[in-house]
Amino acid sequence: MSKRAVTILGAGLVGSVLAVLLRKRGYEVTIYERRPDMRKETIGAGRSINLAMSNRGWKALELAGLREDIEAIAIPMPGRFLHQEDGSSAFQAYGKNGEAIYSVSRGELNKKLMDLAEQHGARILFNQRCSRVDVAANTIFIQQEDGSEQAITCDLLFGADGAFSALRTAMSFTDRTNFSQFYIEAGYKELNIPAGPNGAWQIEKNALHIWPRHNYMMIALPNTDGSFTCTLFFPFEGNPSFAALKTEAEVQAFFQAQFPDAIDLMPTLVHDFMHNPVSSLITTKIFPWRNADRSCLIGDAAHAIVPFYGQGMNAGFEDCSVLEALMEEHGEDWETILRELEQQRKPNADAVADLALNNFIEMRDKVADPVFLERKKIEKELGRRYAGRFNSVYEMVSFSHTPYAYALHCTKAQDVLLGRIMAGGDFFTNIEQPEYAAQVEQWLHEYEATV
Amino acid sequence: MSKRAVTILGAGLVGSVLAVLLRKRGYEVTIYERRPDMRKETIGAGRSINLAMSNRGWKALELAGLREDIEAIAIPMPGRFLHQEDGSSAFQAYGKNGEAIYSVSRGELNKKLMDLAEQHGARILFNQRCSRVDVAANTIFIQQEDGSEQAITCDLLFGADGAFSALRTAMSFTDRTNFSQFYIEAGYKELNIPAGPNGAWQIEKNALHIWPRHNYMMIALPNTDGSFTCTLFFPFEGNPSFAALKTEAEVQAFFQAQFPDAIDLMPTLVHDFMHNPVSSLITTKIFPWRNADRSCLIGDAAHAIVPFYGQGMNAGFEDCSVLEALMEEHGEDWETILRELEQQRKPNADAVADLALNNFIEMRDKVADPVFLERKKIEKELGRRYAGRFNSVYEMVSFSHTPYAYALHCTKAQDVLLGRIMAGGDFFTNIEQPEYAAQVEQWLHEYEATV
Repeated sequence: MSKRAVTILGAGLVGSVLAVLLRKRGYEVTIYERRPDMRKETIGAGRSINLAMSNRGWKALELAGLREDIEAIAIPMPGRFLHQEDGSSAFQAYGKNGEAIYSVSRGELNKKLMDLAEQHGARILFNQRCSRVDVAANTIFIQQEDGSEQAITCDLLFGADGAFSALRTAMSFTDRTNFSQFYIEAGYKELNIPAGPNGAWQIEKNALHIWPRHNYMMIALPNTDGSFTCTLFFPFEGNPSFAALKTEAEVQAFFQAQFPDAIDLMPTLVHDFMHNPVSSLITTKIFPWRNADRSCLIGDAAHAIVPFYGQGMNAGFEDCSVLEALMEEHGEDWETILRELEQQRKPNADAVADLALNNFIEMRDKVADPVFLERKKIEKELGRRYAGRFNSVYEMVSFSHTPYAYALHCTKAQDVLLGRIMAGGDFFTNIEQPEYAAQVEQWLHEYEATV
Repeated sequence: MSKRAVTILGAGLVGSVLAVLLRKRGYEVTIYERRPDMRKETIGAGRSINLAMSNRGWKALELAGLREDIEAIAIPMPGRFLHQEDGSSAFQAYGKNGEAIYSVSRGELNKKLMDLAEQHGARILFNQRCSRVDVAANTIFIQQEDGSEQAITCDLLFGADGAFSALRTAMSFTDRTNFSQFYIEAGYKELNIPAGPNGAWQIEKNALHIWPRHNYMMIALPNTDGSFTCTLFFPFEGNPSFAALKTEAEVQAFFQAQFPDAIDLMPTLVHDFMHNPVSSLITTKIFPWRNADRSCLIGDAAHAIVPFYGQGMNAGFEDCSVLEALMEEHGEDWETILRELEQQRKPNADAVADLALNNFIEMRDKVADPVFLERKKIEKELGRRYAGRFNSVYEMVSFSHTPYAYALHCTKAQDVLLGRIMAGGDFFTNIEQPEYAAQVEQWLHEYEATV
């Protein structure tokens, strides 16, 4: 069977990695990208949330051959740095062995991936907005800069065109396609902590900073230039909310009251707040993801999720890793490749969507609770003492390739197990007593029987 | 404040009733209808499921002034006539006092409603497909028969354009609009039992006939001409399924085996089966339903549901009754009218969607179970003995104006109550004993405390 010609909608992170993997196997690849070439033009800021690269993301970068390049510009964040309401702070490690997630600039990563895709022979066409797709005909309609529309019938089409994918929209109008989109009550706004003197980081560089404030939060991720990209996740309506903070004086007073340790580091706060847009946070689910062996959604186009587990890009990259393995296994049998991709990834995409929604509660609220921090310590100790038998959900998601669906499935059983352990007083003292250790062993057996 | 000019998308059942109610209050009303005028042209059959009019529907017809006209062509169905797998049959009354739902021809009802709308001064324009809507500009784009597109900016716009509403589609693309569409695994096909000699009904006229077959079923509703419109609800895939029944011989053999008492009454069965289309069954949910005081969804456009509770039209008509009451209360304050309509109806629309999905299980599977039939008898007896304290969910939905959300909420508590009662042996004997009656009284207290 001859190699099929592949068309990709979107030269974002997933589209570019996909192009590299396909080119490595000899497929002709053309990408239609809506935006101008970000390597040549300055892109308006104000909407980005820094990426947190974790194990699933690294795997795809390794397959693409870009791991080392990105490691050089990635900042390890081995834990959360919590800025509590009472002015105290705490560092909470993510893993039991110092594992880290990595702050990466979306723009820098995307530029490198585009370079790599082109170096491998993919053709990227910019300023090519796909206005609609005829799914049955496998035809994309590209709006040209002069306003005309170009119809391109594709051989094999991937929709890597993000949370508002044109291919997904078209698929959602086909009979018996299930689809949902759900916005949370909070939106976000990008803010900034600039570098200090000599490009120094003004707060701990190697951490993901969180200011948990119950029903909202601010986070900050480090950049290589010494600055931090901050994001305020905040209700649209109510009090406090984006709607309620109207004047510069109100913004200043609110941050002074709620984020006193941050405001002095944010000289452009009021200007940024008044000028940067508020963006909404969507979760989308669709099924099926594909039309026979002719077109398929991938990444955010198939499963847009909220950013609270830092898994949006990682999940999209894992789609690519799974596709790579399926291409290796099934050769040119694209009916099987796409069917298996859909079957393997759909339950995991649904799961990571739910994990991400749940983690907003954890980040904005639970991390402010000492009981929760104690639980995280116990989880790590359990992981050490019972290696191979217990691994926290966070570690499964961020530091393993365990399917998201399994990680989600373990959530409730871990709540039961940790609830039992924490009801009995100080774990670290208790566990030294043989009879308590035997009790924990019993609980762990029951946990293992459940998951 | 002067009366606003109202534009309605869709001259279906809800759009026509809405037009009448608005005209009665003096609003100028123009309806754009996609199809040709069904009063002048013969409409292709094969996709209709007969309507079952119940109390909520009658109320709106009464407000519109059409109750008597429709009563004349409606056939009361006071219960289900069950055609069991073993060849036995059973009649199960819907209400404790002989209440009925009414079989009504969708086409006849719609024609009468269009006539009435026009008699009241509404203008209905046919063959006017709305291809898209600009929600922010409140502009509809009507595709003309010559292929051109006419832009019409509306003052007040209602989308009564059904399960695939153009206004809803446009609203679903606006920021922070939640939307879902969900198809069940079964589709449906229209079949037919013609009238017998002299226009006689060949099976019981005053009943909704069901052939429950676990994961599928056939139903039949009476028409005034002596025929029955049959609908086979059947899986798309698997065995048996639409996909599996390929040849005329297979269709014949399948019906012979599964519906032996029906097949002799269906002379055109094989032809109908091979030629009538298979239609899918969608549930849609959206929020918000409106853009400020400028546009609003109503009926299926706001809440398309599956037909298994016979509530699709009734729910849409209840939207109209609620709107009527809100117009009476709030005059020309459309911001308030539409906000209240959305607030009152959204939870009930979500609830009836779930009730309808659940009722598929009840109709295709549970009604074949003698235990279930016994439960229905007990429910009615409870309703008689404890009048005002117990009313079955079915009766609440079909024979009252109790909010759907409350009816759904009562489902679980009724399961508990009936489960307790039925665990104790024969209710009708037991209840004559004072101590058992006291026990039931106690359970009923607990039920009342829950709902």
